Parts: sequence; C-alpha cells; structure tokens
Amino acid sequence: MDYQPRLDDVRFVLDDVLGTWPKLRALAPFAEVDDALAGQLLDEAGKFVGEVIAPLNRIGDAVGCRWADGEVTAPPGFRDAYQAFVEAGWPALAAATEDGGQGLPAVFEAVLFEWLSAANHGWTMAPGLLHGAYECIRHHGSEALRQRYLPKIASGEWLATMCLTEAHAGSDLGQVRTRAVPQPDGSVRVSGGKIFISGGAHDLSDNIVHLVLCRLPDAPAGPKGLSLALVPRDLPDGTRNAVHCDRIEEKMGLHGSPTCAMRFDDATGWLIGEPNRGLAAMFVMMNAARLHVALQGIGLLDAAWQKADAYARERRQMRAPGAPGTAAPASRGGEASDLIVEHPAMRRILDTQRAWIDGARVIAYRTAAQLDVARHDADPKQRERAQRWCALVTPVLKAACTQQAFSGASECLQVFGGHGYVREWGIEQLLRDARVTMIYEGTNEIQAIDLLVRKVLPDGGAGMSALLVELRDELEAARDIDADVQRRLAQVRYLTTTLAMAATADPKLPYEVADDYLRVVMLSLLAWAWARIGRACEDTTRDRSAEAAFQRWVLPEFELRLGIVKRACEAVTARPQTA
Amino acid sequence: MDYQPRLDDVRFVLDDVLGTWPKLRALAPFAEVDDALAGQLLDEAGKFVGEVIAPLNRIGDAVGCRWADGEVTAPPGFRDAYQAFVEAGWPALAAATEDGGQGLPAVFEAVLFEWLSAANHGWTMAPGLLHGAYECIRHHGSEALRQRYLPKIASGEWLATMCLTEAHAGSDLGQVRTRAVPQPDGSVRVSGGKIFISGGAHDLSDNIVHLVLCRLPDAPAGPKGLSLALVPRDLPDGTRNAVHCDRIEEKMGLHGSPTCAMRFDDATGWLIGEPNRGLAAMFVMMNAARLHVALQGIGLLDAAWQKADAYARERRQMRAPGAPGTAAPASRGGEASDLIVEHPAMRRILDTQRAWIDGARVIAYRTAAQLDVARHDADPKQRERAQRWCALVTPVLKAACTQQAFSGASECLQVFGGHGYVREWGIEQLLRDARVTMIYEGTNEIQAIDLLVRKVLPDGGAGMSALLVELRDELEAARDIDADVQRRLAQVRYLTTTLAMAATADPKLPYEVADDYLRVVMLSLLAWAWARIGRACEDTTRDRSAEAAFQRWVLPEFELRLGIVKRACEAVTARPQTA
Repeated sequence: MDYQPRLDDVRFVLDDVLGTWPKLRALAPFAEVDDALAGQLLDEAGKFVGEVIAPLNRIGDAVGCRWADGEVTAPPGFRDAYQAFVEAGWPALAAATEDGGQGLPAVFEAVLFEWLSAANHGWTMAPGLLHGAYECIRHHGSEALRQRYLPKIASGEWLATMCLTEAHAGSDLGQVRTRAVPQPDGSVRVSGGKIFISGGAHDLSDNIVHLVLCRLPDAPAGPKGLSLALVPRDLPDGTRNAVHCDRIEEKMGLHGSPTCAMRFDDATGWLIGEPNRGLAAMFVMMNAARLHVALQGIGLLDAAWQKADAYARERRQMRAPGAPGTAAPASRGGEASDLIVEHPAMRRILDTQRAWIDGARVIAYRTAAQLDVARHDADPKQRERAQRWCALVTPVLKAACTQQAFSGASECLQVFGGHGYVREWGIEQLLRDARVTMIYEGTNEIQAIDLLVRKVLPDGGAGMSALLVELRDELEAARDIDADVQRRLAQVRYLTTTLAMAATADPKLPYEVADDYLRVVMLSLLAWAWARIGRACEDTTRDRSAEAAFQRWVLPEFELRLGIVKRACEAVTARPQTA
Repeated sequence: MDYQPRLDDVRFVLDDVLGTWPKLRALAPFAEVDDALAGQLLDEAGKFVGEVIAPLNRIGDAVGCRWADGEVTAPPGFRDAYQAFVEAGWPALAAATEDGGQGLPAVFEAVLFEWLSAANHGWTMAPGLLHGAYECIRHHGSEALRQRYLPKIASGEWLATMCLTEAHAGSDLGQVRTRAVPQPDGSVRVSGGKIFISGGAHDLSDNIVHLVLCRLPDAPAGPKGLSLALVPRDLPDGTRNAVHCDRIEEKMGLHGSPTCAMRFDDATGWLIGEPNRGLAAMFVMMNAARLHVALQGIGLLDAAWQKADAYARERRQMRAPGAPGTAAPASRGGEASDLIVEHPAMRRILDTQRAWIDGARVIAYRTAAQLDVARHDADPKQRERAQRWCALVTPVLKAACTQQAFSGASECLQVFGGHGYVREWGIEQLLRDARVTMIYEGTNEIQAIDLLVRKVLPDGGAGMSALLVELRDELEAARDIDADVQRRLAQVRYLTTTLAMAATADPKLPYEVADDYLRVVMLSLLAWAWARIGRACEDTTRDRSAEAAFQRWVLPEFELRLGIVKRACEAVTARPQTA
C-alpha cells in the first residue's frame, strides 16, 4: 500500500486549529491567500504526491542508486518524476515571484514536503535542499550569482547540495579543511574532499549546484575561518567543472538518495557572502533544512501509522478483550478472532502515533507560518517574536519529530508481528529510512545543545520564557485542559530559571540534561497543541481517541523529564561551593 | 571491530554479585562445579566466540543465505564454524550426560549464547533452538524417539527447528491448520505450510529435525486441538522426507539466518507427547527459547556498546565542557577538540547501556541458575519457588532486554554520527538484527500479556507478591540504597493488588497497561540488581559510573510507568458501577 496524503487531517490543523489563512492574509504578500486557494493547491499537491511520487518508494529502496565511473544513476522512474515535479512548478512554490517563483506562504511548502517525505523519503531528498539553497543565494550571493543561479534553483531546473562534512570532521565544522584559493577574476579554486553529500551526483537535473564550506588560505582556525563557495558541476560555458563523485555510501536505508563522497579538484567556484562568514550564510540553509527534517519525521511517522492502521483494520488475530469476535470458518479451526485494531495494546500504539502526528503538525505548521511572519510582518516586534519562535522551536521539532518517527515506526512495525520484519510490507523500509533523520542536519544531541546552551541559557531563559507566556496567553484558563497546560508552561519557565542558575555553578550540567530539557519543551508544546485541537473538536464529531492517548500515554513523560532535570539541578546546588 | 567477550564483566556478576557456584554446588548434579571449572570453561567459550564466530558476522550480513531449488546455502564460513562448534562439544553443554551431554548448569549455556548472539546473531540462530528441542523431546518424546533423536540433538550433529507460524495465523496458534493423519505403523503424515521458520533449510548440519505444530483429523478447534510432531528432513532409512523449503524471506536484518517458508507434503513424522497436547510440549521449548532471546538482547546491546565505546574513545569531536581538549595540528585548523567519550550526552548514552547490560545480566543469570534449582533442588518448595521465578521473570526479561537491545543499539549508533548510518562500522547491522528479537518467540506485547493476564492476575498477584518478598529479604535495610529498593518492591506489590482489583471491574484494563506493568517489574528487578552490584563493588576499585547512570537516567521510568498504571486503575474504580 502506497502512502496517500489525507487532505482533511491537514486542513483541520491549518484551518480549524491554527486559523492559518486569515493570519497569513494579514501579511502584505499573501493578501490573496484564502481557503479556496489553499484547498485547491493542497488538493493538487496531494494528488501529485499520491499518484506520481508514492508509487516509486519501493523501487527506490530495492534498486537504489547506482554508481559507475563517477556517474550516479537514480532508481528507475525517479528522473521522470522529478521532471514532472519541476514542470508542475512545485519547487517554485515559496520562491519570490521576481525570481520566477510563486511567492506563496512557506506553510504550503511545509505540507508538500511532509507529504513527499511520507510518500518517498529517498526521492524527496533531491528537491529537499532547493529552498534552503535558494534562500542562501538570495540573501548572501552577489548580484551576478543571483542572476545566474537563482531562477534555475527557484524553478528546480538545477538541483543543489550542501557540502559541509569532511571525513575527519563530522559535526565539528571548525575542522573543515577544504581550501578555496582566490583568483584574479574574482572566482576561487576549491580543493578538498567532502563526505555524506546527499545528491552530490545524480541524473535527475541537468546541473547540480554545490554550496561548499571551505577555508581561504589566510583564514583563522576554527569555525570563524570558514567561507562558503558556490561550485556548479557544469560551468557557465557548458564544460564540466573539476567536481567528482568518488563513491556512494552503502547505508542502512534511504537507498533512493545517493550519499556521495565528493572531491573538488581545483574546481571553479565563487564565494557566497563575505570571506570567513560562510557559517552565517550556511546557517540560513541549515535552519530551513532543520524544519524540513522535522516535517520528514512527521511524514514518515504518518506513513508508518497509515500502513499499520490499514493492516490492523484488515487482519484478525486472536480474541480481544471485550470485542465482538467473529468466528472463522470451520476450515480455519472455527475459532473466533478479532481485528488487530481491537486489541488494546495495538490500539494504544496506533492512537499514540496519531497523538504525535496531529500534535506535531500543529507546532510545525505554526512554525512554517511564523517563518513568513518573521519575513513579512509590518511590525518589527512581531517579526522579532516570530524569529524567536523559529529559533527556539526548530531544534525542538527536529529532534523530537525525528525521534518519534523512528521509535513510532518501530512500534507500528510491531503491529505487523513477524510480517513487519520482512521487506514485503514496506514498514521496515520506513524504519530504516527514518533512522537517518535523527542524525543529519545536526544530530539530535546537537539540536538539544543548540536549544539549551546556545539559545535558551545565553539570555538567562528570557526568550524562552517570553515564548511560553505567549502560548499561555492563547489559552482559556476557564477550560480545565487549558488550565493544566498553563500550569505546565509555568513549570517549564520555572525549570528554565532553575537551570540557568545551576548552569552557572556547573557548566557541564546543561550538556547532560539538554535532551531532557528539549523533551520537556516539546511535551509542553504538544500539550498546548492538544488543548487547541480539543477546542477545535468541540461540537464536532471528530474521533477523540488520539486526544485521550496523548493524555494517557504521551504526556506523562513530561513529569519524568522534568524530574530528571530538577534533580540534576538540585545535585549541583546542593554541592559544597568551592569558591 | 569484531565483538570480544569480556570475561571479567561476566565473572563479576556470576561470582561476586550472585555467588553462583556455591549455590549450584548445593544441587546434586553440580557438586563438582567450582570457580576453577567455571573460569576455564568461560575462558574457552570466550575464545571460541571471539576467534571463530565473531569474524563471520559481517559476511553473514553482506552475503546472507541463498536459496536455490529448495536448498539453502549458509554464508561462507558458517558451516565450518558450526562443525567446529559441534566438535568442541559446545551444544552438549547443558544436556544430560546419559544423552551424551556434559550435564553442566544452564548458566554456562546462558553466557555462551549471550556471547554468541553478541558476536554473530545470524549464525547463533542455528544452534539457538537445539537445547529447547532437546528438552522437549526428552520430556515428551516416546522412548523410540528419544533413542533415535536425543543424542544427535544433544551433540548438535543434527539441528532442530520449531514450526509454529502459518501464513494466516501469526501469534494466534489456535488457528493452525497443518494436518497430521495417523498411520497404522504409529507414525503420522503431516501436510501444511509454515512460515517464518528459522533454519528450516540450510547446509550446516547433516539432518534437520522439525518440531511441527499440527492438528489431528478429529481434533477440537482452537489451541486445545494442537498436537506436536517430530518431522525429520531425512528419514531414518536415509531417504529425503517430503519436507520442502519454498523460499526464504527478505528481511530487515538477520541475513545470516534463513527464515524459511516450509511445506510439508504428506511428510512422515511422529507425535511428541499426547494428541491435542502439543502446545504443552511446545511450551517447554518456547520458555527455554524466551530466556535465550532475552540473552540475545543483552548480547546485542553489549556488542553495540562495545563498538560505540571503542569509537568514542578513539575519535575526537569539538570541545567538551570541562574536558582537557587537545589541539589539532595546524594542518587541521589547529582547533582543540576532545574525545567523543568526554561529551556528556555521549557519555550518558554509553553509561546508560552499561547500566542495562550489567543489571540485566544479574537477573538473566539468576534466572538461568533458577532453571537448575527448579530441576534439581532436593526441596520441593525450593523447586516450586524457582519455577515461579522462571515463569514470572522470563517474559519480563524477554520483552525488556530486547526492547533495550533495539533502542540502546540505536542510541549507540548515534555516537557514530553519520558514520553510524553507513554499513562500514557495523553498528547499523546490530540495530537491524536486534529488531527481530522484539517480535519472535512471542511479540513483546504478548510477553506483557503473558506476565500480567496469564501469570500474575489469575492468583490475584499472590505469586508475584511472594517473589517480590523473596527479593526484599535478600536486601539489607540498613543500606540506604537497599531501603530504597525495598520501598519500590513494596510499591510493585501494592500496584499488583490494585490492578487485580481494578481488573475485576474492567477486564480490558490489564491488556491496556500490561506493557507498563512489565516495565515497572523490570525496573524494580534492575533496581534490586544494582543494589546487589553496588554491594559487590564496595571496597573495590570498580568503575561506578554505570551505577550512577542507572539511578539518574534509567530508574526514573519506574515512577512514570507506575503512575500510568495507577491512574488507569483509578479511572476504572472511579467509574460509576453498573451492577
């Protein structure tokens, strides 16, 4: 069974829970965005994903990408699907109209990429970096680079990569050694090796634009000496640049996406942004990519849920307590048995994943909408507030949604019993594919440190506190469930302050509990989301079982994690001070 | 890096924590078992595992088993290794001397199979069912069957399978349709298809003995109409029996073990045990197998930890808070960086896995020792008590250790960053291999139901309560840590009673919280184990960081799960009674 986007689920979150369109219409560029446009666009997106992209998922895994003599061939059907994607204008969705884009809100792109990832994670890796590259060149590229590359990337005619990692330096970008030597004509010659480059070589598009983290000859050591160069595979005169793909990795999953070892051999490129400011330029791309990875997580989890749910509603297994039971024919022993979905343990697995999917969608779509507020709101305070939301919530979403994609897909696999472990049903592919999302674009441990050490603690928790207050003010204290969430948000604020104080006594502490802190934040965001969903469900006939599952099975982790952080803080402050 | 058994770790648990040998020597058959014998045996086992079995793990995954024309070829080297295993007498370790075995305590076999699984899970599947088949035939087989098959199986000359699952019935054995038709000569003709048969066909041994769950023509419907037949691939006269392997599954992992679809086509067999009592005979085998699966979990987790620990102690990445930092040469940017193991988030991952491995070993080895007490103790009360321990603790170990093998291997993979996701380092193989242990020999959800619904609740929790009291009495209330564990054991007793009462009001409830209950029990057992380990560490220089990790990161789940079960019980009893 291939993944099928379920438009109603997404529209419920966008329309009823978040009230997205009126808010976006308040931003000048989106005055025309209404229900009708959104409905039509998402409907078309859903069809494209379900009909063109989803059917290629299995072959992408089974055949995978092939490397021969430096050239990489994508799995059968992938190039045609990509060309159809470009022709339909999907890459240009959120790019500015002046660059040939459609100038639509980021939230459409968010939903599109969530669905694409759910349907075919491997294929989706190819266009997945387009928008980040677009933003990076748009904001940091020279006029000449913008003119030459921006329209091609906005349209998706050329694909892009992000070349960061080197063999000796994984998460540690400060150790990057690739060199860029300036030339009299303003170009640079780039030399060095990069690994783990998604889409470094393939046959999907006619050119590939590499954004390469590198070091000028006189650059200072460490991350402050990094520059960013644009290095196209094919040069403007049509000749091949000195860019080589030496091999592709054999991986646990994601076989539909080539993970390339790249070699730049005095390749011609041009700096993007100022010398030694490459990391700043790259971060534009990485932040966009991180939200996309969170959406991949949500999509993959939804795909796993969809498969398991369908299986559980079709197949019978033993008697379930309190269920009706249907007698099997005598030829099958005559024993009565119930649908798998009637078994409480299985139902719990399914409802718990829906609790994550629906709740995380609320937070992720809100984040996508905040991206546009941060760009387009007339009020600088609103822009700043939205910027703060994106900075704080993106790492939380990236880590929590990818973690849940993996562990939730594993739970969904369990619904299939032994059949889950064999290739046939495709659930094990989702598990293998999902695993990488916990690693790339910054491991989940790095997201947690990014959140706590780089973003929350430097201002003593003030920014996070303001965000939590903002959420609190959107709730209605008269509703019991909202009051409970308000209490939790207050607990997170208090915890943040406690942690900020304890961290001054022991600088190691935040690194030890960063993961717990991130989970506390995510669970409070989810609690907020579910209060909002519950409100939107009132007076409707929507099924409330995921809401119950959230309260029973998901939310209790909040106290667990809160307790771990608290005790760690107490242990630090109880220690005799040696001053 | 191939897995290397670490003898000291295991001996510390067996000798110092559990005081295993004096206890076993009190049983008549093991009067000769002492430290010296144990040391020599385990030393030899460790060498065999490390030198012969571990080096074949990668090729087992990469090449896998091949099916052609009904015959299955094991990966290169597997047959030779198996023959060496047989020649060294390892299969016969715990088999009775009168059957050609060595008559040694089960705990040796437990350690051997834990190490084998850690070194090469795929290969170990082949001999993994030998001992269960041995016990099954020994206790339920006719004199003729015992004479013909027991010595061959005790020696490992012939391998054995367990043929339960059919395509239309996974966990639901009541739906088994394979037919056995009695013949005038006392044999049966067996016809039907079985799937997911580990080692159903291969070239490791000269014959394969299938134990097949089947149904006599006049049998009642459901599980009470099941019989067990022994069906050899090669008949006593040397001709091939009508036993066919139609295909092997393509799986997520465990490629070194063929998972076969078997077809019995009027194959000749003989009933083991009484007609319609097949499940009872099979359960002997399944319970032995379940402890072995728990040991696989511990082994796989230890293998993952070993890989990640070695990687983290060799590779540098960024600065760690409070760590010394070593400057890289100028050619590498000159930036200082620390070993991965110095980073708190990574250290936490590693220590947490050790907390699980060491704690679970205490419980698993104790269970293996209790198997022998249950068989050989002169006092029937002791035998009964030991039997109760095995019945209650085996499903807990099976579910919890395999769950941790998978999630812990995933955490260990995280230590490698992007390198963890590529094949090269072998950590992703461990993750793929480990996943199946949560499914086979009864899914983990079935283990939880087995524990709570079939074993704990029927006597109102009396058996579990007695077991918890037994553990309490082995602790010293004067030690703070022991007192804390005693408090937890009392909480589990109280919870059990509460649950037994609430279950009478809502029969569905135990099915909903069975998993949480199992976790509560496991965590209380681990807390007990760590109190014992702590005691054994006193006045030694052993590293205590895993003990601290257990208290900080593992044990808090106890309250989480306890709370979930409690609230579920309260919700039931608060409900208006409709009597």
